[in-house]
Amino acid sequence: MDSKSMYCLSYGVFFLGTRSGEKKNGCITNTCIQVASNPTRVAVSVINANYSCDLIKESGVFTISMLDQTVSFETIKHFGMQSGRNVDKLDSLPLPEDVNGVPYLNWSACAMLSLKVVESHDLGSHTLFIAEVVDGKVLSDKAPLTYADYQNNLKPKPQAVKTDKKIVGWKCKICGYVYKESELPKDFKCPLCGHGPEDFEPIYES
Amino acid sequence: MDSKSMYCLSYGVFFLGTRSGEKKNGCITNTCIQVASNPTRVAVSVINANYSCDLIKESGVFTISMLDQTVSFETIKHFGMQSGRNVDKLDSLPLPEDVNGVPYLNWSACAMLSLKVVESHDLGSHTLFIAEVVDGKVLSDKAPLTYADYQNNLKPKPQAVKTDKKIVGWKCKICGYVYKESELPKDFKCPLCGHGPEDFEPIYES
Repeated sequence: MDSKSMYCLSYGVFFLGTRSGEKKNGCITNTCIQVASNPTRVAVSVINANYSCDLIKESGVFTISMLDQTVSFETIKHFGMQSGRNVDKLDSLPLPEDVNGVPYLNWSACAMLSLKVVESHDLGSHTLFIAEVVDGKVLSDKAPLTYADYQNNLKPKPQAVKTDKKIVGWKCKICGYVYKESELPKDFKCPLCGHGPEDFEPIYES
Repeated sequence: MDSKSMYCLSYGVFFLGTRSGEKKNGCITNTCIQVASNPTRVAVSVINANYSCDLIKESGVFTISMLDQTVSFETIKHFGMQSGRNVDKLDSLPLPEDVNGVPYLNWSACAMLSLKVVESHDLGSHTLFIAEVVDGKVLSDKAPLTYADYQNNLKPKPQAVKTDKKIVGWKCKICGYVYKESELPKDFKCPLCGHGPEDFEPIYES
């Protein structure tokens, strides 16, 4: 099988907001589609190792805000490239809350959905949540950002780093997984999120 | 809830190939995403009333071909706007078969996946199939067609039809459902596939 065949699937890019009691978080995902119309249901897949997955399992509610084409890479980096276990991402960027008290993004987003889990299916690396759409609002008339737009126009291109320090490991920029070897195999796939070598950055000796 | 909030979700557009014994079919869907990476799984949602849904349930195998931006509206119409129950769509357009003997589209498509169902979940209007990726091939370097591309650039705009005949019903162009009244309510939603008035065409008295 040619793994590049999977790269031709199309996705949006979304802010996923979570809350369980006083714990609140937001992360970035590319998986949210409508899967049924009567009643209306969406499916969202979340990495099991992620803090957001724990919070959804605890509370059974979450939000999806559909990022638009004006979103900055900094916003995606803030919510998508650090873990809510280590950083309170909403401390420096407070957000409004939906009918369930769950945070959502009301800027750089064209619409939002308030969601309530009706089924969850553990698929090994990820849990697939099937959710009822409790509420939905259009936030702007801007065009939604696609995952292809993000890859082609928003994500910074890798830059050569000049250093004499030895590489002692590789860190996945998507989920934070660390591979503790100096060389990353060309066909390596992150065991947590499945991303390839282009999404890893070197860790240098200290 | 504002139902337009659902329109900001992004999708690709896909040919879905099916086979059960000697029965073969192909239809068009916009729901296929990767939902797990270890092992690799995709999720595809199919309308329960569709012939393709029956064939997947019978055989447990199907294909997804990711349409590219060169696909014609005629191709989408041929596979997407008539039912395999009434027409043998592959009779006039024979297609190659994958490792499981299931047809796939090898033109107007940038990649294809051979899929085997591992879980299926009945969601009322649709069944959500979670499938193992048995094989995958890149077919061209053309860009994938998104559902927004289809809506904005490929789908013909509705044209006013001059006729003295009375309208006796409305037919859903997506799934074939017939609403047997002369006026279609503005907020009507197809009870089979969930599409709105813009996807219905009038049926005139004969």
